[in-house]
Amino acid sequence: MRGLLQCAAVLLIAFAQQTAMAAAQGTPAASNVPNALTPSIDTDRSIRFQLMAPDAHSVQVAGGDGLGAGPFPMTRGSDGLWSATTPPSVAGFHYYWFVLDGVSVNDPSSETYFGYGKETSGIEVPEAGADYYAIRDVPHGDVRAKWYWSKSTGEWRRAFVYTPPDYDKNALHRYPVLVLQHGMGEDETGWTRQGKAQFILDNLIAAGKAQPMIVVMDRGYATQEGTPVVKLGTDVPPQNYQIAFSAFETVVIRELIPMIDAAYRTLPDREHRAMAGLSMGGMQTLFIALRHQDLFAYAGSFSGPVIQNFTATGSVSALMQLPFDTQSAYGGAFSEPAAFNRRMKLFWLGVGSAEPERFRASIGGAAKALRSAGVQLTYFESNGTAHEWQTWRRDLNDFAPRLFR
Amino acid sequence: MRGLLQCAAVLLIAFAQQTAMAAAQGTPAASNVPNALTPSIDTDRSIRFQLMAPDAHSVQVAGGDGLGAGPFPMTRGSDGLWSATTPPSVAGFHYYWFVLDGVSVNDPSSETYFGYGKETSGIEVPEAGADYYAIRDVPHGDVRAKWYWSKSTGEWRRAFVYTPPDYDKNALHRYPVLVLQHGMGEDETGWTRQGKAQFILDNLIAAGKAQPMIVVMDRGYATQEGTPVVKLGTDVPPQNYQIAFSAFETVVIRELIPMIDAAYRTLPDREHRAMAGLSMGGMQTLFIALRHQDLFAYAGSFSGPVIQNFTATGSVSALMQLPFDTQSAYGGAFSEPAAFNRRMKLFWLGVGSAEPERFRASIGGAAKALRSAGVQLTYFESNGTAHEWQTWRRDLNDFAPRLFR
Repeated sequence: MRGLLQCAAVLLIAFAQQTAMAAAQGTPAASNVPNALTPSIDTDRSIRFQLMAPDAHSVQVAGGDGLGAGPFPMTRGSDGLWSATTPPSVAGFHYYWFVLDGVSVNDPSSETYFGYGKETSGIEVPEAGADYYAIRDVPHGDVRAKWYWSKSTGEWRRAFVYTPPDYDKNALHRYPVLVLQHGMGEDETGWTRQGKAQFILDNLIAAGKAQPMIVVMDRGYATQEGTPVVKLGTDVPPQNYQIAFSAFETVVIRELIPMIDAAYRTLPDREHRAMAGLSMGGMQTLFIALRHQDLFAYAGSFSGPVIQNFTATGSVSALMQLPFDTQSAYGGAFSEPAAFNRRMKLFWLGVGSAEPERFRASIGGAAKALRSAGVQLTYFESNGTAHEWQTWRRDLNDFAPRLFR
Repeated sequence: MRGLLQCAAVLLIAFAQQTAMAAAQGTPAASNVPNALTPSIDTDRSIRFQLMAPDAHSVQVAGGDGLGAGPFPMTRGSDGLWSATTPPSVAGFHYYWFVLDGVSVNDPSSETYFGYGKETSGIEVPEAGADYYAIRDVPHGDVRAKWYWSKSTGEWRRAFVYTPPDYDKNALHRYPVLVLQHGMGEDETGWTRQGKAQFILDNLIAAGKAQPMIVVMDRGYATQEGTPVVKLGTDVPPQNYQIAFSAFETVVIRELIPMIDAAYRTLPDREHRAMAGLSMGGMQTLFIALRHQDLFAYAGSFSGPVIQNFTATGSVSALMQLPFDTQSAYGGAFSEPAAFNRRMKLFWLGVGSAEPERFRASIGGAAKALRSAGVQLTYFESNGTAHEWQTWRRDLNDFAPRLFR
């Protein structure tokens, strides 16, 4: 018989023991569970990881690009505590995991975050001087979990809805809406847990840099009821994306937006509605917002691979590398640049300078071709950051102030 | 270089392979991550667990009381897939974990839930005929994450706030408030993630069985600024609880309740304010609500060990076993039963019939002694359930309809 009380006590003792062993090596990460002293981050942003595993044969630590080239082997102490210190990491949020006798497992000392299609450990490495995503002494909005029935998919869905700090005070005021989507393998929790979107908005609004707005973060997966789930990834045909994104488009256009406009005090017109997303969410933004310019006057793709034609042949990664055809891309959305410029009040593309070449080429190439053709757009390069959340936090911090002006 | 796209694709393929292997053995648990087919639950509530670990030397599955007597050894298939089928489990939510070469690790196929002071896998085993905690076709309230500054602890804290379905429609209406606390090792996410409190309330309100109310779920840990964290558990002196609960009391009374009354449309008086909690949260309810009857007219302790005197000597588990002294307990809160009965509109105690004897004796003994002394109380025994969430879901379902009448 094991009561919660007993286990919690055992755990506290385990952390206390670890504490003694890990003393004075860097600062425990803010993403750790309470009382856990590792992972800890040194002033040069090298990270110390530890795992108690007396009977293990091999332990490594591996993670997202910003963590470094890993996996990094861990070494066993005489007490069974395995440890490793990585080279200096990039600032920001990195997913990571231990490889314990060949199995990828979470770090019990870390909070988990939905990434790679499952719960994954994550580490927050502070960026010197960057407090735009910190919780600060400014008014804070609420982040609401909102459940709604989706007829097209035949399921209850959950969206998160950020209402700005003054929302509950100004009972007659109406607000513009930003639909903000996560990346592949992540879910509707990503933008507030990994991305800290709510604090970015709180800080921008408090500084008068962004309009108070409602931010809607939905689950980016949808399957039309009665049809099979299609696989996504680098090596599937773009038709798979066409099917999945079309189902999500139906959710967004026919269900999510009407539900949000009914449940919250929105300004329900295109001049007050934006869509943006990261990676897959950027792909979805281009897929949906460019086809529904009657509903969206602002669109942003954060590190979103540019797939100009979802009915073409070849893998998605091959299509990412095609030269951007401004006439035919996205069903001809850019074929009349002057008309496009009049309609779309903001078209925003961004990528991190440390992202894989195929992302930089796809996004940078499209931006260059579009500008040459006369399409007005904002292009933002995040310096030194990878296909990771620090890029997307910076993106949102640049994007949000440009909305609803 | 590993992009999210690539990893997500690999993961989908891994799940697809698992799918083929696990075909036709029970129903995947609702608590699984998308596309994961195990753990799966058979009609007799036996559960099949699987973990791909070709290089592991030993794998077991273990978990909360309702899962059975475990740990259960898993057996290795020739493909490196370890599996085990447990005996029929108790219905409800059970924490669980794999023991992989001696290390407790999460199941990558499961969502994680904060329990035992860390993120832990959990499995939802349906209870036949019980839909009071299911998401149903009724109006739904929002669950809001609310950040607030706590001066006494010197930290930003997060509470979750359930606002009932009609809250945003009735802009002039005010609502009563229930403060509802989690157990030890858990956190402010517990009541909505493991407990499904929001759906229990939605269903009760839709059926006209409970008054529409605001439910506030705060983080039950607090340390007065500038003082050390004290350890809690079964073998610490009750003074540790006194210190920790006093710090939490300050948060609740001086910070949380005023913040909630300022931010939301509450009815800010004792007749419209209740407190309840499970296990440690029940202990906190007795500690706080009985001392602040000017603020609370309703109190409920769900499986909360009864510690009548936090300044006594001995361990908490020893104090749980003392005969309940109705005159001196809780600073004399029950010493004048008639006056207590007039003031407190509801005093509610509950325990699961399959909980450890020390819980049943502590809670049942106190209830019996109090009734003998003339104290009016509601005593609720959950049939066949352990010190687990199914007990506490039933508790809330019984408790909430009795409030604010």
